[in-house]
Amino acid sequence: MTETEIPAIPVALDAVGGDFGAAPNVEGAVAAARSGLSVLLVGERVKLHAELGRYPGASALPLEIIDAPDVIGMDEHASDVRGRREASINVANRLVKDGRASAVVSMGHSGASMAASLFTLGRLKGVDRPAILTHLPSKTGPSGSGFVTVLDVGANADVKPQYLAQWAGLASTYLKVVEDRQHPSVGLLSIGEEDHKGNALTLEVHALLRQAAEAGRLNFHGNIEGRDIFAGTTDIVVTDGFTGNIVLKLAEGEARVLFGWVRDALRSSLLGKLGGLLVRPSLRGVAARMNPSTYGASLLIGVNGLSYIGHGSADAVAVKNALLRADRASQMRLVERLNAELQASADPKADPKAE
Amino acid sequence: MTETEIPAIPVALDAVGGDFGAAPNVEGAVAAARSGLSVLLVGERVKLHAELGRYPGASALPLEIIDAPDVIGMDEHASDVRGRREASINVANRLVKDGRASAVVSMGHSGASMAASLFTLGRLKGVDRPAILTHLPSKTGPSGSGFVTVLDVGANADVKPQYLAQWAGLASTYLKVVEDRQHPSVGLLSIGEEDHKGNALTLEVHALLRQAAEAGRLNFHGNIEGRDIFAGTTDIVVTDGFTGNIVLKLAEGEARVLFGWVRDALRSSLLGKLGGLLVRPSLRGVAARMNPSTYGASLLIGVNGLSYIGHGSADAVAVKNALLRADRASQMRLVERLNAELQASADPKADPKAE
Repeated sequence: MTETEIPAIPVALDAVGGDFGAAPNVEGAVAAARSGLSVLLVGERVKLHAELGRYPGASALPLEIIDAPDVIGMDEHASDVRGRREASINVANRLVKDGRASAVVSMGHSGASMAASLFTLGRLKGVDRPAILTHLPSKTGPSGSGFVTVLDVGANADVKPQYLAQWAGLASTYLKVVEDRQHPSVGLLSIGEEDHKGNALTLEVHALLRQAAEAGRLNFHGNIEGRDIFAGTTDIVVTDGFTGNIVLKLAEGEARVLFGWVRDALRSSLLGKLGGLLVRPSLRGVAARMNPSTYGASLLIGVNGLSYIGHGSADAVAVKNALLRADRASQMRLVERLNAELQASADPKADPKAE
Repeated sequence: MTETEIPAIPVALDAVGGDFGAAPNVEGAVAAARSGLSVLLVGERVKLHAELGRYPGASALPLEIIDAPDVIGMDEHASDVRGRREASINVANRLVKDGRASAVVSMGHSGASMAASLFTLGRLKGVDRPAILTHLPSKTGPSGSGFVTVLDVGANADVKPQYLAQWAGLASTYLKVVEDRQHPSVGLLSIGEEDHKGNALTLEVHALLRQAAEAGRLNFHGNIEGRDIFAGTTDIVVTDGFTGNIVLKLAEGEARVLFGWVRDALRSSLLGKLGGLLVRPSLRGVAARMNPSTYGASLLIGVNGLSYIGHGSADAVAVKNALLRADRASQMRLVERLNAELQASADPKADPKAE
C-alpha cells in the first residue's frame, strides 16, 4: 500500500483495551493513519476525542471514533463479554461482522477478545476451534525468512488431534497468502524427531498430518523438537495451546533474562563498559528482533473474519504494526482464501486454485 | 570432599556410552579421580585400557576398569536393554544394585539408561514413575541460587496427575538434601497464574499440590508461566515429561541462537569488532552459565539408587561434573532421605525428622 492509496474499508481498533488504556492505542492509530490507513477508534467517545486532541492535524487523518461506553477490564472474566453488548471489544467485532471494518485489533483482555470474536464472527466451516497464531524469530527459517509461525499459543489448553491437523492447514494457507510462501513446511512439536516419539496426542496428530500430506494438502516435515523452533527447521510449528503458550512465554522470558545478563556483563568492568559503548548499536538490532512489538499482535485464525490480539502491555509501535498487518491480510483476502482451501479440503474434487 | 579424602564407594561410569565413545568419558573420569573421586570405568576392557594409557600417572589414580563387552548404540532401541545383560549400561547399574558403586553415570542412549536403571534398581516405594530432574539457569531464583530445578524433562510423555504430585515431593527433598534449601518452593507450570488457569491435567495436579501443601508436605507457590522459568520465580518447576522436554530443548536452542546473533552483531562492523574484543571476557561468563556441561547430567529421580543421565554430546567437563554431583548425592544419602520422606508421607503420623 502506498501513502496515497486509502483502503476502502477501515480497521477497527479496540482503542481503550490494554494495560495502558487509550494512550498507546491512539498513538499507534495516528501513526498508522499517517501512513495512509483508515482506522475506526472504538471506545468512550469523550476520552478518545481528548486523546486524539493531543496530535496536531489528527482531524485531517482517516480516523473515526465509534462510541462504545463500556470496556472489559484486564482483571474481569472473559465470559463477561456475553452480557455486555456495548463493551468496546463487542462493538469492534460487530463492525467487522457488519462489513464496516475489515478487521478488529485489540490489546485488551485476551480471553475476552477471543470470546467476542468467536461469538460475534463465528467459526469458519470446517474449523472446530480457532487458534492463536503468532511469530517467533528464528535463525534463518527454511525459507530464509528469519521467523517461524507457531500455533496454537494459548486459545485451547485441551485439544483433540483433528484441531492440530486443521491448524496446520490454516497456517499453511496463511503463509501462502500473506507471506507468499508456496509450500510452507509444517513441523509437529514433539520430543523426538522419529515418527514414533511423542505423547498420545502427537502420535495421533502425526498420522493425520501424514494423511493430509499424502493427499497433497500440506507439506509435512515430521516431528520437530524444542530446539528446532529457534533453529527455524520448519516454516510452521503446530502444537496444542498449552504447550504453545509455555513455548511463547519461555522464549520471551529467556530472551529478556539473557539480554539482561549481557547488559550486566558489559557493565561489570571498565573494559566491558568501553566495549559495551562500541557494541551497543550492533546489539540493538538483536534485541529488536526479539521485541514482540515488531509483530504487533497475533492472529485468531479460524474465525469468520480477521481478529488480531496483542499483549496487554503493547506500545504504540505494536499497535501500529498490528493495524498494518491486519490491513495487509484484508487486502490479501485472507479469510476468503482460508474458506476456499477449507471447502476444497472437504471436497477433494474441487480445486482451490480454480476458485 | 577434600583432595585427600577418598570415598569408600566409587561411582560407576558407563565409559563407552555417548556420541563420542570412550574419549570424553575417560578424560572426565581421570579429571574426577585427580580430585580424589573413585570411579569404576565400565566398558570394553581393552579399549578403556588403551584410552587410559593416554594419561600419564593414571595407574596411580583411584580408577578401575570393569569389563562389559557390549554397548547399546545411540541409534538402537531402548528396549534392547532387556536382553543384553553384558551391555555397559546394564553392568554399571548392577554395580549400584550390588552395592559395589554408589551411583551410575551415563552419557549414552538416554532411553536405554532410563530403562536399565528402572529394571535393575526398581522404583522407590510410593513412586509410580521416575522422572528426569535437571537444572536450568535463572535470573536469581527465590533462594538466590541462580538455577531452577525442572522435572520431568523427558521420562514420561504421558502422565497421570499423581505422578507430578509425587515428583514435586521428590524434588523438594532433593533440594533440601543436596542443596540445603529448607523450604524449596514448587511452581506448577501452566498457562496463567490464577488457580483455575491450565489444562485438564494441571487443574487436577493443582488440587493435589494444594492438599500436599496443606498437609505441610511441601511449599506450593501455585501456577507459574513459561516466563517464570528463567525469572526463577520458584525453586522447582514441575511439569509433565512432554512439556518439560520441549522447555529444556527450547531453552538450550534459544540460548545458542541468541548468542550466535550477539557474536554476528559484534563481527558486523569495525566498531563492533573492536568492542567485541573488549567485551569477550565478560560475555564468556554469560555463555558458561547456559552451558549444559556446567551441570553435567540429569538425575533419574524415583528409582531405588542414584542414576545420572547426560547429553550424548557431553564433553569431559560434563562427565567430571556429573561424577562429582553423583558422589555428592551419595554422600548426602539422597536415596535414603527420599525413601524416608516417602514413607513419612504415606504414614502422616511418622515424622521424617525423627528417622
